[in-house]
Amino acid sequence: MENRADGQADERRALALASLIGVDWGSTGLRAFLVGTDGLALAERATSRGASTLSGKEAFAEVLEQVAGDWMRARPDLKVLACGMVGSLHGWLDVPYAVCPANAPALAAGVAVTPNGEAHIVPGLLYDDGELPPDVMRGEETQILGALALRPELQGASCIVLPGTHSKWAQVRDGEVQRFATHMTGELYAVLRQHSVLGRLMESGGGFDEAAFNDGIDAARVNGHLGVGHQMFAARTLGVTGRLPAAALADYLSGLLIGHELRAGLAWRGEAGLDQAPLALVGSRELCRRYELALRRYGDVPSLALDNTAPAGLLTLARAAGLAPN
Amino acid sequence: MENRADGQADERRALALASLIGVDWGSTGLRAFLVGTDGLALAERATSRGASTLSGKEAFAEVLEQVAGDWMRARPDLKVLACGMVGSLHGWLDVPYAVCPANAPALAAGVAVTPNGEAHIVPGLLYDDGELPPDVMRGEETQILGALALRPELQGASCIVLPGTHSKWAQVRDGEVQRFATHMTGELYAVLRQHSVLGRLMESGGGFDEAAFNDGIDAARVNGHLGVGHQMFAARTLGVTGRLPAAALADYLSGLLIGHELRAGLAWRGEAGLDQAPLALVGSRELCRRYELALRRYGDVPSLALDNTAPAGLLTLARAAGLAPN
Repeated sequence: MENRADGQADERRALALASLIGVDWGSTGLRAFLVGTDGLALAERATSRGASTLSGKEAFAEVLEQVAGDWMRARPDLKVLACGMVGSLHGWLDVPYAVCPANAPALAAGVAVTPNGEAHIVPGLLYDDGELPPDVMRGEETQILGALALRPELQGASCIVLPGTHSKWAQVRDGEVQRFATHMTGELYAVLRQHSVLGRLMESGGGFDEAAFNDGIDAARVNGHLGVGHQMFAARTLGVTGRLPAAALADYLSGLLIGHELRAGLAWRGEAGLDQAPLALVGSRELCRRYELALRRYGDVPSLALDNTAPAGLLTLARAAGLAPN
Repeated sequence: MENRADGQADERRALALASLIGVDWGSTGLRAFLVGTDGLALAERATSRGASTLSGKEAFAEVLEQVAGDWMRARPDLKVLACGMVGSLHGWLDVPYAVCPANAPALAAGVAVTPNGEAHIVPGLLYDDGELPPDVMRGEETQILGALALRPELQGASCIVLPGTHSKWAQVRDGEVQRFATHMTGELYAVLRQHSVLGRLMESGGGFDEAAFNDGIDAARVNGHLGVGHQMFAARTLGVTGRLPAAALADYLSGLLIGHELRAGLAWRGEAGLDQAPLALVGSRELCRRYELALRRYGDVPSLALDNTAPAGLLTLARAAGLAPN
């Protein structure tokens, strides 16, 4: 009972101090925050009601009410600002992409409001140089702005890497996202493990096999010219021939795929003249740890790793859009 | 009725002329042949009773009896020789791999017979240089020997490419398979199309989109250093941004993945000093056509394309093993 009373007192304090109700609303889940003046989350709630699980615009309003209705009634002066797939064609509102290069004011200029005014929604970001195929993100642009707000030393020139199902690599100069590239590493790993011949020999359990992971990284780093479509077959042959135990094959494949992402991503960063600039990892601790290990194999050390930068990014955008006090 | 009588007469002739009952018995299907003295199939039958569909050793004997029992009774002097996954751990008999470099006599020395003598089975082939992860094939070694038998100009020095679910690239010198590499191109395409976000926008129908396929090849050829795990995302973004119609996205992805296979495979061939040697494609006409188009984008022209070389390879091995008259 005491804990519950403490929790209620904490939430009252958080409500009193908050500048914004921020929502990071992706395909598969939603996190809502009371965001303080420093860009950190004073309170946080999560649900699995992601944009891809909802149909009909009313469903979005209902979920927002369930998750944050009490916050909105307690502080009717606070605005709600959401980022992520909530702003896509199959989301709450189809918000057109902002275009690279883009900084916080440019993204803020694209913020749109839902028809009944329940929430404001951040645009996604498009990179299109007219030559290469275009690239898109929704949600990560806000996490990037959050990283820049929390760590101003990244604003001048940096490379920001957001590992995940679809990893994003972003080149930043003068507070602008100049260019970015998506790598489908996480999804590739998942579909190969669940649906290809490579998953058949793999056994789970036994924890993270760092040696097998490093072997995968090194295969990409040293022999990546042989092609990832060839090298991934080793996640079968190393098992068939007894070179690696079944419990190690998944981490070998993970290392190989992350290794190929780094092989391409680090060269891309170098071509942009950013190899001396800070490299920041933004994402869950477990995934950032894998990328840190992989970067070290490449002789590169990430300058910093940040978790949950969405609240800071949402506050930055809310201020730039006049939706939160400066 | 006349056609049926003709068919029976053809089959009697085929039976009279045959040197071998050959079976190409893969994971998902089986093809049985009456093989003539020239290595061509005089008669052919197919079923979907592949090794991965069967459990228990008896099932293999039953399927062979159903498919070729009348041939075996009509010509009890003919041996049955089978290649492919039928010789794997989960096949009829686990036949140990022969080891590269290997020629026809070396592979023939590894042929094993089933416990009740119904059939002889060809070993698979292992490449293991002790440094790179090992690579394996079962069935393709026989197709390669068939290509060498049908086209003796390939025996001195050549690169033989067998496109498929798991494409195989083989380096041949002096009639020996010296080295080979598997590329999981076909399976990668299938799992991405069926199970990843890339498949969602794709529409079928409308036939082969050669322009989109070529765009995919060129993306790999010109900008492959950006990484296939990045470039495949274009099969989504080109659709999202309306650059390619939904019906073209699958062929774009197909071109991109085949293009990456060629990027790695042609460099691998060059490193082995085989870039002036003939390059032969062995596989279905439709798939060989895609690879021919792709090779032309790379400025390389395949020397020849061959379909169904397994009967000739089986005859070569049967002769070398003393299972068919020379």
